[in-house]
Amino acid sequence: MAEQQTKKRISFLGPDASFTHLAALKAFPDSELIAYTTIPECIEAVAEDKVDYAVVPLENALEGSVPLTIDYLFHEVQLYVTAEVLSPIEQHLMVHPDNAESDAFEAIYSHPHALAQCHKFLYYTYKNTPLEQYSSTSAAAKMVSELPERNIAAIGNEFSAEKYGLHIVHREIHDFHFNHTRFFVLSKTNHQLENPAHNEEVKTTLMISPPKDDRSGVLHQVLSVFAWRQLNLSKIESRPLKTGLGNYFFIADVMDDEMSPMMQGAFMELAALGCTVKTLGSYYTYE
Amino acid sequence: MAEQQTKKRISFLGPDASFTHLAALKAFPDSELIAYTTIPECIEAVAEDKVDYAVVPLENALEGSVPLTIDYLFHEVQLYVTAEVLSPIEQHLMVHPDNAESDAFEAIYSHPHALAQCHKFLYYTYKNTPLEQYSSTSAAAKMVSELPERNIAAIGNEFSAEKYGLHIVHREIHDFHFNHTRFFVLSKTNHQLENPAHNEEVKTTLMISPPKDDRSGVLHQVLSVFAWRQLNLSKIESRPLKTGLGNYFFIADVMDDEMSPMMQGAFMELAALGCTVKTLGSYYTYE
Repeated sequence: MAEQQTKKRISFLGPDASFTHLAALKAFPDSELIAYTTIPECIEAVAEDKVDYAVVPLENALEGSVPLTIDYLFHEVQLYVTAEVLSPIEQHLMVHPDNAESDAFEAIYSHPHALAQCHKFLYYTYKNTPLEQYSSTSAAAKMVSELPERNIAAIGNEFSAEKYGLHIVHREIHDFHFNHTRFFVLSKTNHQLENPAHNEEVKTTLMISPPKDDRSGVLHQVLSVFAWRQLNLSKIESRPLKTGLGNYFFIADVMDDEMSPMMQGAFMELAALGCTVKTLGSYYTYE
Repeated sequence: MAEQQTKKRISFLGPDASFTHLAALKAFPDSELIAYTTIPECIEAVAEDKVDYAVVPLENALEGSVPLTIDYLFHEVQLYVTAEVLSPIEQHLMVHPDNAESDAFEAIYSHPHALAQCHKFLYYTYKNTPLEQYSSTSAAAKMVSELPERNIAAIGNEFSAEKYGLHIVHREIHDFHFNHTRFFVLSKTNHQLENPAHNEEVKTTLMISPPKDDRSGVLHQVLSVFAWRQLNLSKIESRPLKTGLGNYFFIADVMDDEMSPMMQGAFMELAALGCTVKTLGSYYTYE
């Protein structure tokens, strides 16, 4: 894509070989990718011009939204979504090549979410093997690669097996085979990365704060603004405004370009209703 | 209240002196309170008849909903809300009485949320003191009580200071003074605990799944069912159905009794729209 002709710098939620790293490679196969330890650090890197784009997780099909990403984008920075990346979450059981012949392990290490995602497989196949929580799937893979003398296994993605030279004993051991995570590619300027699928499905993400007097029924009014225009919402979710229990803002994904006449009309009516709208821009999907 | 004349057994999310423990004492001052380590264990205790009621956190004004509570109530059990408890979250800095004269500490220990909630106070008053994460506020208080020879402090609630005999050095050090947490009191049968404030404000919590063909705009239709009846929603939130990215159910709090004629009409229309509605019952608030 055009953005990559000069070598761009991209922050992502690390460590190396994380699922976010995989997502960042999908959008930026030839750029300089820099791992950050936390979501706020990753987002601040682009807000402070240390990098051109940040790639952070937004939502998982099983766990739901990542509140830290949504809250940081609402409360702390004004950034724009230039693309979203949808990645399947596939977990594999991996060991040091010295232990490739073994099928009984001292312990299995991974991030708590990955252990949970493989619950049924682990229950039926390794019922008596201790499960040990680790800070990330790729940190667990790294640790296993450094301790060939211990007959231990890690659960993680294929990329971390490659990176740390591990042997995959069981592939695709996750219980739900539709599990995906959605990532945002963030920038300081409101623009779009190239449309990789060349489809017409552009999406706009809005953060809508209701009027301060918080009339009950305002969400119904907000949805009416979109409904009669046949603007489809693929998602709507509430998050606390942090001003007191019961005060929320809404994050909505609308299936249209923010510059379309219908969207411009919707923005005007939302303002007339007393709502404050923060747009994160319009963008295409990398699958 | 009537429920307490025979001594009831109550599970709560522990450890002892947790904020959930405080909330449970508000609703059940004279009952047998039993700490459980995790939210699922606490909920299962009532589902399996080990206790009469379970008290679990649902939502915090800063952090938002507790996904584990909502998902477990939707996917795993059929329980009812018999009351909700609203508790202010007040954090204090506490030390062993031997160190009561000190105002400079080796380190300050607490749960990561509590450290985050006191961020500004800690930044301005103890800028160079290391902050150490601990599994809970009351576990941190317990540890400080057991190590008088170390000049360390914990952050937690007043109850944990009392329980572990600690001296409070600074009171109410949390940054936001409106911070509350909302707790559910769960039972296997659909009934209401006594209305402690003797007000008329009864609330019903519903879990609404849209029809499987997931017509876009269904949330607008759902809200219309309530809006024209002047049934006010104090909260609506989406959570993943765990059937694939983009598939959600909605948890809605409606300000009316589920047996009212308007609510019964709403239930019939929601069914006609193809929605599946799981009611958690109607209940009053303990503040």
